[in-house]
Amino acid sequence: MMGGEMFKWATDLYPLNRSLSGEGNRQTLRYLKGLVPDLNIRDFKSGEVAFDWVIPDEWNVNEAYIENMSGVRLVDFSVSNLHLVGYSQPIDRVIEKEELLEHLHFVPELPDAIPYVTSYYARNWGFCLSKNQLDELGDGPFRVFIDSAFKSGAQGGSLNYGEIFLPGNSKQEILFSTYICHPSMANNELSGPVIATALAKLLRTRNHHFSYRFLFLPETIGAISYISKNLQSLQESVVAGWVLTCLGDAGEFSYIPSRTGDNFADRITRSVLQQTHPSYLTYSWLNRGSDERQYCAPGVDLPICSVTRSKYATYSGYHTSLDDLNFISENSLSESLSMFLRIIDKMESCRLPKIRVLCEPQLGKRGLYSNISTRESYLHSTQNLNNVISFLDGNHSIEEIAHKCHISVADTVLIVDELITQGLVYL
Amino acid sequence: MMGGEMFKWATDLYPLNRSLSGEGNRQTLRYLKGLVPDLNIRDFKSGEVAFDWVIPDEWNVNEAYIENMSGVRLVDFSVSNLHLVGYSQPIDRVIEKEELLEHLHFVPELPDAIPYVTSYYARNWGFCLSKNQLDELGDGPFRVFIDSAFKSGAQGGSLNYGEIFLPGNSKQEILFSTYICHPSMANNELSGPVIATALAKLLRTRNHHFSYRFLFLPETIGAISYISKNLQSLQESVVAGWVLTCLGDAGEFSYIPSRTGDNFADRITRSVLQQTHPSYLTYSWLNRGSDERQYCAPGVDLPICSVTRSKYATYSGYHTSLDDLNFISENSLSESLSMFLRIIDKMESCRLPKIRVLCEPQLGKRGLYSNISTRESYLHSTQNLNNVISFLDGNHSIEEIAHKCHISVADTVLIVDELITQGLVYL
Amino acid sequence: MMGGEMFKWATDLYPLNRSLSGEGNRQTLRYLKGLVPDLNIRDFKSGEVAFDWVIPDEWNVNEAYIENMSGVRLVDFSVSNLHLVGYSQPIDRVIEKEELLEHLHFVPELPDAIPYVTSYYARNWGFCLSKNQLDELGDGPFRVFIDSAFKSGAQGGSLNYGEIFLPGNSKQEILFSTYICHPSMANNELSGPVIATALAKLLRTRNHHFSYRFLFLPETIGAISYISKNLQSLQESVVAGWVLTCLGDAGEFSYIPSRTGDNFADRITRSVLQQTHPSYLTYSWLNRGSDERQYCAPGVDLPICSVTRSKYATYSGYHTSLDDLNFISENSLSESLSMFLRIIDKMESCRLPKIRVLCEPQLGKRGLYSNISTRESYLHSTQNLNNVISFLDGNHSIEEIAHKCHISVADTVLIVDELITQGLVYL
Repeated sequence: MMGGEMFKWATDLYPLNRSLSGEGNRQTLRYLKGLVPDLNIRDFKSGEVAFDWVIPDEWNVNEAYIENMSGVRLVDFSVSNLHLVGYSQPIDRVIEKEELLEHLHFVPELPDAIPYVTSYYARNWGFCLSKNQLDELGDGPFRVFIDSAFKSGAQGGSLNYGEIFLPGNSKQEILFSTYICHPSMANNELSGPVIATALAKLLRTRNHHFSYRFLFLPETIGAISYISKNLQSLQESVVAGWVLTCLGDAGEFSYIPSRTGDNFADRITRSVLQQTHPSYLTYSWLNRGSDERQYCAPGVDLPICSVTRSKYATYSGYHTSLDDLNFISENSLSESLSMFLRIIDKMESCRLPKIRVLCEPQLGKRGLYSNISTRESYLHSTQNLNNVISFLDGNHSIEEIAHKCHISVADTVLIVDELITQGLVYL
Repeated sequence: MMGGEMFKWATDLYPLNRSLSGEGNRQTLRYLKGLVPDLNIRDFKSGEVAFDWVIPDEWNVNEAYIENMSGVRLVDFSVSNLHLVGYSQPIDRVIEKEELLEHLHFVPELPDAIPYVTSYYARNWGFCLSKNQLDELGDGPFRVFIDSAFKSGAQGGSLNYGEIFLPGNSKQEILFSTYICHPSMANNELSGPVIATALAKLLRTRNHHFSYRFLFLPETIGAISYISKNLQSLQESVVAGWVLTCLGDAGEFSYIPSRTGDNFADRITRSVLQQTHPSYLTYSWLNRGSDERQYCAPGVDLPICSVTRSKYATYSGYHTSLDDLNFISENSLSESLSMFLRIIDKMESCRLPKIRVLCEPQLGKRGLYSNISTRESYLHSTQNLNNVISFLDGNHSIEEIAHKCHISVADTVLIVDELITQGLVYL
Repeated sequence: MMGGEMFKWATDLYPLNRSLSGEGNRQTLRYLKGLVPDLNIRDFKSGEVAFDWVIPDEWNVNEAYIENMSGVRLVDFSVSNLHLVGYSQPIDRVIEKEELLEHLHFVPELPDAIPYVTSYYARNWGFCLSKNQLDELGDGPFRVFIDSAFKSGAQGGSLNYGEIFLPGNSKQEILFSTYICHPSMANNELSGPVIATALAKLLRTRNHHFSYRFLFLPETIGAISYISKNLQSLQESVVAGWVLTCLGDAGEFSYIPSRTGDNFADRITRSVLQQTHPSYLTYSWLNRGSDERQYCAPGVDLPICSVTRSKYATYSGYHTSLDDLNFISENSLSESLSMFLRIIDKMESCRLPKIRVLCEPQLGKRGLYSNISTRESYLHSTQNLNNVISFLDGNHSIEEIAHKCHISVADTVLIVDELITQGLVYL
């Protein structure tokens, strides 16, 4: 389902030089807006304060390389944007190998991999390369050339993000947040935005009860900036949310709970994964690492968790060039999309079901109870139904109701679905 | 205690044709009003809406029978009102046995029993008979005759119920609810109204702290109608309540908890049963089946549970003619009455005790503490007393206090009784 | 630490005739005011009502003895003020031995010990003596002489107490309450006031975040009177408190929890004792016996617990003349003082830490996070730090955070201390 499309989007977006800010981010957002016209490209000005942080200057790169004295380009940003340490400042010098080595990053245990390194908040410069490239650099001296530029807020510098809002029948919102700050990496970056885009594309053509908000932000500073501007409305509206990342590889689904671990998003997630991917992994909040860190921070406390395939920081090629388009697949993206659609369907249909009527509803007139009441009718046919109804108080999730009624989640869903069909449960 | 009287009332009420409505219900209520003049006979009009329900038309029966072509009455409502399916519509036809069989109800495994069957909300007709009668019906054809009539609200049709209110010193109310909709059955019908009547008779001659409300309603629709008219005042006033049913047989006492399982009624019930009938059975909320279904529904949430002897739907003759006056006894009714009087006494004296004074009371001036303070006085004599006092915060039941103080419930009651005597605990 | 000073204070205060009221109490308070000039000597008038109690008349004693007919003083208040039952009324009679015995108190199993006995609220008289003295009394008759006097409120009688208030940066208060109503006993009386005095002496020369209040009251009636006059402000201000008593002997530290057992004082106490005296004893609330009885009473509900060495009523010489200056030591007093200073330090530095910023703080600019972000930086260095931060919501104690983050309390303290240093945590 949409696997081919999503993979193509990822392929198109792969070479762009995303970071906290800059032209690559805007190119990314413009590309996504081409897919979902509801996407608004917005910005925060460089230098603005967001809680404990300051929005950094915008950073752009024209060219960057290391060459030897024969003019051979040994490491070249135009070959892979991972070669350049993020937010490197400009330089044009000839230096000895000893000095160069202090600015080189590689992964000894992955000799083919270019690592992903950034230095957002301390002015620095550096290159990343594979161990194999390092071994073949030669003796130097080397020319290091970085044509990058920083733009303050006064100079028009900004940090861009994308926002899609799809209003539903209710003001209650579901939030999907993903990030657009990693350069050429596929699973730990592009899988999130393409799944978010596919979800938005599908939802915009559907009727839906909840309102849906999609955010495409640079990680950490983007989420912090957004929260700092929208905290109250988020707290008033968001009833569930997910951080979307690492959704393209073939690994098992992985659930990272919210800080409290039992909000509506957590419960829906566990319910769907249990039904569809019962061997899913459950991590601890202690193992979180993306923007749920901000959304669930003390005082922010939004009901947001995360589902990934192989979780960031658990797979070998994480934060290296090995996290490329070969690491993700149409099929995995499609599966992940389906899983989130299941989550959405579940929320749309079941969520925290609440009975519309006071006292028991009249089941007989709805064909849910034998109109002839015999001694058997009480004994067998409707006890589960009545038991489920008795817990439809808006405070119990499907799982909790199933547990309390000593029946399976699947049977509970069947019953609630029937009651929804009958118009007896609040949607 | 009053066992003979209650049994006589049940005997007098036994033949009346009770249903959701009709003359049999009014006869029943008039009889009870003869016993307790405070009883008010009230009604809801047929056709009125009560939450998800509509009050059904009033139903009355003059005569109903099946006879063979020789004019022999094979099944006759005048012999037992259980023979007619409740709310049967009128008919006067001669039909073949094949057609008749579609309208007959019997219990294969209880060959002597006439089952109890109703069809309140779908117009139908039918007869109930024993398996033995069925076997001797002959080949037919048969004349089926039902002289019944329905009366809409416009025609003066109504649903009657009885209400007794005995005001106490407090506006806090204890609710006893029982039902008057089953025709000739003794345990699963009449035991409830006669126990309720006896309780009211006794309480009206006593001083009591709480106010007491007794409801005699047709099950389900009666309770729903009452709640729909009185929800707010019930929620404001009722601090505990019990549904009274199945209290006349010799079975073990059975406790059916409220939906939340830990309100004041639940705790008092468990406390009394533990003291007086420690081998009582505890059912789950999932096994409930009477009007606690309405009183505890989401959004209604009254603190009401139920105590029965053999619970409905657990004994062989349930909802058949075997649930007759032989199945109940003076002695069992008397025991059940005593048990509820214990519940009332317990509530009246102990309930959620709350100390009247801030800080510890001065025990010495009340003779509860040696006026001479020696090293022994602290060590032994008053520690339990002070421990109990320290939990008299209005949120702990006697049992909880006993548990927290590591003493028996009986000792806790002794201590609280002493403090009540001393005027130190809120009544 | 201050062990010598505290022991000297105890030695000076030992002979004074403390009781609920009287000159001995004022002498005690004046002595303490000489040590800490911030101490205010206040009073409640005799006859005033405090909740369920009435402040008793002031009691003073000039002289009291039993002598034989030869004029030999057999039992003499001037030798030990324990010889006289507290609040004994005046008498001057010659009586037979039989009558005398009804007014004598001794401890058969401790033949050398004079017991401590009072009769505050019933007018009586009596003497306390050792079993050995009793055996040598002779045959009588005896002259019993008590020159005591009671002073009502109208006659200027009062009950005195001392109060030290040391304002901090915050209006939140820590309360230390100790008692001054026992005559010549060392552990179960003077250890409390001298530790409280030492704490106040040390705190008044320090900056401190919390405000500190020290109360020196007669037990029970003093605390009740104080609470009756100050309930609202205590409830608004006090965030933790301790009753100080039995802190001078060599016994293991003992913790008596508050009624709820999990307030800030409880948690801090357990945390400090676990770190410093891991073999400390934990008693139940049921074994309490001092003014936590009043501070934690229903409706008062202050967050106050108690730490002692050997708990009152657990050691052999309790409430006798054996609880003398030999039973306490400089070293034990010093250890106890150190322990409470650790409690204070812990509260001052860690308490219920709360992060000052919304979302995660920027660790990099504070040197708490590598400015170069590589794949390893996420994996190892800051996860514990971020985990701790995620629970700094003001509702989790250090121990709870440690538990939730799967790290040691010590490591959690290190992290929180670092965050405090960085100004990121509310002090």
